[in-house]
Amino acid sequence: MNFELTSDQKAFQASARDFSLHELAPNAADWDRDSHFPIDVLRRAGEMGFLSIYTPEEAGGMGLGRLDASLIFEELSAGCTATAAFMTIHNMATWMVAGFGSDEVRQQWCPSLVTGEKLASYCLTEPNAGSDAASLKTTARRDGCDYILNGSKCFISGAGSTDVLVAMVRTGEPGPKGISALVIPADAEGISYGRKEDKMGWNAQPTRTITFENVRVPVANRLGEEGEGFRFAMKGLDGGRINIATCSLGTARAAIEQARTYLAERKQFGKEIGSFQALQFKLADMATNLVAARQMVHLAAAKLDARDSQATSYCAMAKRFATDACFDVCNDALQLHGGYGYIREYPLERFVRDSRVHQILEGTNEIMRVIIARRLLSDDTFQV
Amino acid sequence: MNFELTSDQKAFQASARDFSLHELAPNAADWDRDSHFPIDVLRRAGEMGFLSIYTPEEAGGMGLGRLDASLIFEELSAGCTATAAFMTIHNMATWMVAGFGSDEVRQQWCPSLVTGEKLASYCLTEPNAGSDAASLKTTARRDGCDYILNGSKCFISGAGSTDVLVAMVRTGEPGPKGISALVIPADAEGISYGRKEDKMGWNAQPTRTITFENVRVPVANRLGEEGEGFRFAMKGLDGGRINIATCSLGTARAAIEQARTYLAERKQFGKEIGSFQALQFKLADMATNLVAARQMVHLAAAKLDARDSQATSYCAMAKRFATDACFDVCNDALQLHGGYGYIREYPLERFVRDSRVHQILEGTNEIMRVIIARRLLSDDTFQV
Amino acid sequence: MNFELTSDQKAFQASARDFSLHELAPNAADWDRDSHFPIDVLRRAGEMGFLSIYTPEEAGGMGLGRLDASLIFEELSAGCTATAAFMTIHNMATWMVAGFGSDEVRQQWCPSLVTGEKLASYCLTEPNAGSDAASLKTTARRDGCDYILNGSKCFISGAGSTDVLVAMVRTGEPGPKGISALVIPADAEGISYGRKEDKMGWNAQPTRTITFENVRVPVANRLGEEGEGFRFAMKGLDGGRINIATCSLGTARAAIEQARTYLAERKQFGKEIGSFQALQFKLADMATNLVAARQMVHLAAAKLDARDSQATSYCAMAKRFATDACFDVCNDALQLHGGYGYIREYPLERFVRDSRVHQILEGTNEIMRVIIARRLLSDDTFQV
Amino acid sequence: MNFELTSDQKAFQASARDFSLHELAPNAADWDRDSHFPIDVLRRAGEMGFLSIYTPEEAGGMGLGRLDASLIFEELSAGCTATAAFMTIHNMATWMVAGFGSDEVRQQWCPSLVTGEKLASYCLTEPNAGSDAASLKTTARRDGCDYILNGSKCFISGAGSTDVLVAMVRTGEPGPKGISALVIPADAEGISYGRKEDKMGWNAQPTRTITFENVRVPVANRLGEEGEGFRFAMKGLDGGRINIATCSLGTARAAIEQARTYLAERKQFGKEIGSFQALQFKLADMATNLVAARQMVHLAAAKLDARDSQATSYCAMAKRFATDACFDVCNDALQLHGGYGYIREYPLERFVRDSRVHQILEGTNEIMRVIIARRLLSDDTFQV
Repeated sequence: MNFELTSDQKAFQASARDFSLHELAPNAADWDRDSHFPIDVLRRAGEMGFLSIYTPEEAGGMGLGRLDASLIFEELSAGCTATAAFMTIHNMATWMVAGFGSDEVRQQWCPSLVTGEKLASYCLTEPNAGSDAASLKTTARRDGCDYILNGSKCFISGAGSTDVLVAMVRTGEPGPKGISALVIPADAEGISYGRKEDKMGWNAQPTRTITFENVRVPVANRLGEEGEGFRFAMKGLDGGRINIATCSLGTARAAIEQARTYLAERKQFGKEIGSFQALQFKLADMATNLVAARQMVHLAAAKLDARDSQATSYCAMAKRFATDACFDVCNDALQLHGGYGYIREYPLERFVRDSRVHQILEGTNEIMRVIIARRLLSDDTFQV
Repeated sequence: MNFELTSDQKAFQASARDFSLHELAPNAADWDRDSHFPIDVLRRAGEMGFLSIYTPEEAGGMGLGRLDASLIFEELSAGCTATAAFMTIHNMATWMVAGFGSDEVRQQWCPSLVTGEKLASYCLTEPNAGSDAASLKTTARRDGCDYILNGSKCFISGAGSTDVLVAMVRTGEPGPKGISALVIPADAEGISYGRKEDKMGWNAQPTRTITFENVRVPVANRLGEEGEGFRFAMKGLDGGRINIATCSLGTARAAIEQARTYLAERKQFGKEIGSFQALQFKLADMATNLVAARQMVHLAAAKLDARDSQATSYCAMAKRFATDACFDVCNDALQLHGGYGYIREYPLERFVRDSRVHQILEGTNEIMRVIIARRLLSDDTFQV
Repeated sequence: MNFELTSDQKAFQASARDFSLHELAPNAADWDRDSHFPIDVLRRAGEMGFLSIYTPEEAGGMGLGRLDASLIFEELSAGCTATAAFMTIHNMATWMVAGFGSDEVRQQWCPSLVTGEKLASYCLTEPNAGSDAASLKTTARRDGCDYILNGSKCFISGAGSTDVLVAMVRTGEPGPKGISALVIPADAEGISYGRKEDKMGWNAQPTRTITFENVRVPVANRLGEEGEGFRFAMKGLDGGRINIATCSLGTARAAIEQARTYLAERKQFGKEIGSFQALQFKLADMATNLVAARQMVHLAAAKLDARDSQATSYCAMAKRFATDACFDVCNDALQLHGGYGYIREYPLERFVRDSRVHQILEGTNEIMRVIIARRLLSDDTFQV
Repeated sequence: MNFELTSDQKAFQASARDFSLHELAPNAADWDRDSHFPIDVLRRAGEMGFLSIYTPEEAGGMGLGRLDASLIFEELSAGCTATAAFMTIHNMATWMVAGFGSDEVRQQWCPSLVTGEKLASYCLTEPNAGSDAASLKTTARRDGCDYILNGSKCFISGAGSTDVLVAMVRTGEPGPKGISALVIPADAEGISYGRKEDKMGWNAQPTRTITFENVRVPVANRLGEEGEGFRFAMKGLDGGRINIATCSLGTARAAIEQARTYLAERKQFGKEIGSFQALQFKLADMATNLVAARQMVHLAAAKLDARDSQATSYCAMAKRFATDACFDVCNDALQLHGGYGYIREYPLERFVRDSRVHQILEGTNEIMRVIIARRLLSDDTFQV
């Protein structure tokens, strides 16, 4: 057991921190206020490799692992939660195309995805298929060399501004075995986009409903075989949960740094408020919980990298723990700022709004508990 | 001991509920989105008596008690948290003018305040005097029959849109004994207003910094004697804490009602999500905590009405408990809605944003603990 | 609405406080250590009326209400949690006999129960029927004018040392409708008692399993009609929940008083530890939560007294909230005492051990949530 | 970064698990009930090397690291919390003698300490010097080649049954710099032992006050130089905190295993209670928190092994987090067992009682927060 970063990892981390400090942090408040999706900055992130971190090198990616990716995403999310979160989604979609696509599909899509020349949205959730993803209803009916798609997807990050959709659709029977994964050009005929959702946070990325009306997609665009889509989605979710948990880590870390500074500077009753013991204790618990959350994420990422048979359970634990703990850290940091925590001049309220959705996305934290408990109660070999 | 409402109380409550349902609830989302301060609706609330609930009848108010007011404000805040909260502030300012002003001051200002013809802002907080209100620095220098004011106030609700300022200013020595309370026309020469703060919530009321630059205010506008201002402010805060705690009650109640409906309607995995036991337990705890919070508020209000010597401690307990518990209720209700909780189409994220500031205002919840503990540790006769 | 006690209530409270201070508090630690069941003191409590508080006057009781009883039990439990808790059980059993028994049964048993000349145990739980009480299996087969009982009851407070058993037994069909309530002399032939359970706390009252082997009980000893037993038990539980929640209130209050004293006396780092802000905040929250818990209990008791149709839900809320909050208060008070909190020379660890079972008894706090949620989700008229 | 155990570590762990299962677990309940200090079993643990895990090999120890030790102690504490905890104390004392003693001291004491032929107590706390250890008052006055000791120590684990005392005493000025560490034969003339403390738990090890009355100890028995004692004590505490936190891990793991079994076996309402979702969620959170706690402990241990300059902060975080989280796990496991959790026939209530003291020992969890916050607020290079 060893908790030290390798020199390579330190190097990735440093370059991500640098990018975050210069490209993300100075703009995050404006992007939130203006609901601006910073495509130019995403492209520059692509040049750094941050859009294809764990995409294999043969597909043009950095070929790193999930733990490496977590180190990078933590830095990026400390600069802008919502933008970093979008990058994790693009990474997941790109990894899926590279990992499950045929050579042809890979060659067609990966070159532009790994650089961010094209941005991707991941399309799983439907209005009536949230936690219960296996019940999704968007149909892909076979018609010669094409599928014809009908249905709709909701809460799709980037939708309306991205170029490629990686979508789970029903090609067969009800339930998980009838689902397939397709790569779809975002401007295909018959695709329409709903209005931009007004959200509590994550405003630096647009969220829209997507409607498919007789959209024709070549069968060649399918990833893997028919019926493998749900399995791919679930594999993707393990990593997606580590990613989103990581975005909570970076946000909470930024919140703690803000609070440390504020406690040292703000004076009331004739002294720095950091001299009040109850506030000190709060800060100590915030830092402790962040460290615990990070350890959970790193452990889960390492298990995923090692293809550990219990990785899914550990990813669920990490996602549940880290997103809950880090939301509380952000919210406590807001409180430590008093009235200043509530106004947009300070980043605290944005940290709270942005990190709030992480407890819901990629499987709600309630679904995480279902996953964890099921394993605990059904598998005697699962030791905690 | 008796927990039943009188028939009068039931009547107030019913009329407030009716007003809330028809005038506030349908508009709350729009006012939040548009940062609209609904002066017309506030005036109609004034016609109903809701802007002078506990102002004495001889000053034109309803002459009710704090417990009565809590029943009314709970209903109003269930319709629009931010608007109801502004009404509580106007009520407090009006009560101060009516209660501490000379006959002349009362006659000049009360008629238009009780009806809402004029709206009032309450000006206590300064950039460097938040929790430590007694250190405020805005000066009022005596010059003949006038005071000349210099300094600034921040986080002032309604500022820029209201007509009257009830302000705490320093007329004497440092510390609480040098503070006096003045009634100031909002358009007096030398008053300037900062830009509207971008806040996490409470968007239906503007918040601004106010700067006084050689503002001339007649000495006759002073409430009570020189040096009594801090005492008035502290007396006002007891009631202010009950009011703001009450605004949390109404918001949390609305959140629970939304959640009950959603749990009954939303289906996943082939059944209403209300059939999942873990969600049932969450709902049960939310309801239990709301009931506990309301009891705390009612108890404190009754003690204030009875001029109980321990009322300040009970108001602090009620404010701390209710605003914490009700924020958690709103946040849990958001979670029960999954992705729908995060978008503005549903009111949950607004409930979270609006109720968040109640943990900070009128004395942060940290200051509440200071107040409670001080009494517990210094007064052996204080039994809990 | 009115939170003041009547002069009668103050008088009950004062006499209970006096009894508690002189008869219970000085002995509680010894009774715990020696697992001593203080029958003599219980008899003296009987003389004071504390064993028949809400038994009707015509049956020899004090004829008071549930709210009155809560005021008394809080005082008693502040002196000895376990002994006060046994008194509440005896009160419940006596009330059942007086309330549901025929004139004959009442005349036979009540005179000695109301005075404590005879002590009663309440027998509902069975090894396989805990939370699921309606599935109880102890049978009472009719044989002429007698029932013949077979089966066993577990976790029975007082068993082996009491004189009367009020037992729920199956006289008919499976499920709740086949259950009847019987009054049984504790020394009836065929009754055997298991060994005294070693428990975490509640050591001042013995707990045993009771086995019925062909125990003959006159049909005349039945309370009400055949099949009414479960209904009686459930009615009893509403009050039982208020009682047990009240025993948590008194214990938590005693814990807070200990902590206040300790914070004022104990010095570390050259000053009273009560001057450390983080400990002050802890104390403030403990006091606040106790006040909230008491309000919940009083509200539920008042609803039970008023035969409010929602009383069961409010009793469940009060039991859940108060027993959880007060256990935490006791546990926090232990922590404030450092190492001294962990040794039996101080009462804190006993408070923790004794109050712990209140979260389990009279329906676990999980079952409370089931009760609350069921009502919330099935009854639109139930407003919180 | 790598979370895998080495094969050596797996071997230690397996042998500790084996010892725990056969020597500790079957007896833990009896030792608790009888307040039995199992000296024979401790000696057998010594034979296995478990009494000198991180004592250097040259002093006869196993020469392992703190992380290795944590793996071993977790297994041992899963068998008997109190006995494992005593072993950790003996390990600490032995390590101090081996690490800070002169060759002569080492040769005199280590051979019998590493095998457990002699058992050691660690004597730091005094009645008025708990959290504020630097204020200790036991004096060691120089008299020729001896010190003469006067004063008393309290809450000393093993006292009265151990052979060697490693004690912190005042040889000089007030404050930390006047403290020295001595090795003292437990039967030296002038040492008297108080009565065995009645404690909430940790009954398998005796706790007593020790009084020194003109006890003569050779100067040669001093560890290091005069005035170094407090520094040694603080170094010892870093490891001591990891140890005690580890004892919480093992206990919580055992509690979870009991709960898993119970949820699978216990039936209510016609099905295993493990099928109730709210109980599943509770179990999932318990497991998640245990995993997080373990990660914190391992991380801190690794930092201590690496002599990281931030090790003290991480040890404090690990101790605070793990002992709090694991107590809650044990307490939740008790609740899942209902009434059976409350009786001594099941181990749950013992787990709760035993693990409770870990939140107090080796620096209360409040002191941990002081340590963490002080670093956060004073050292900008400390990144979390």
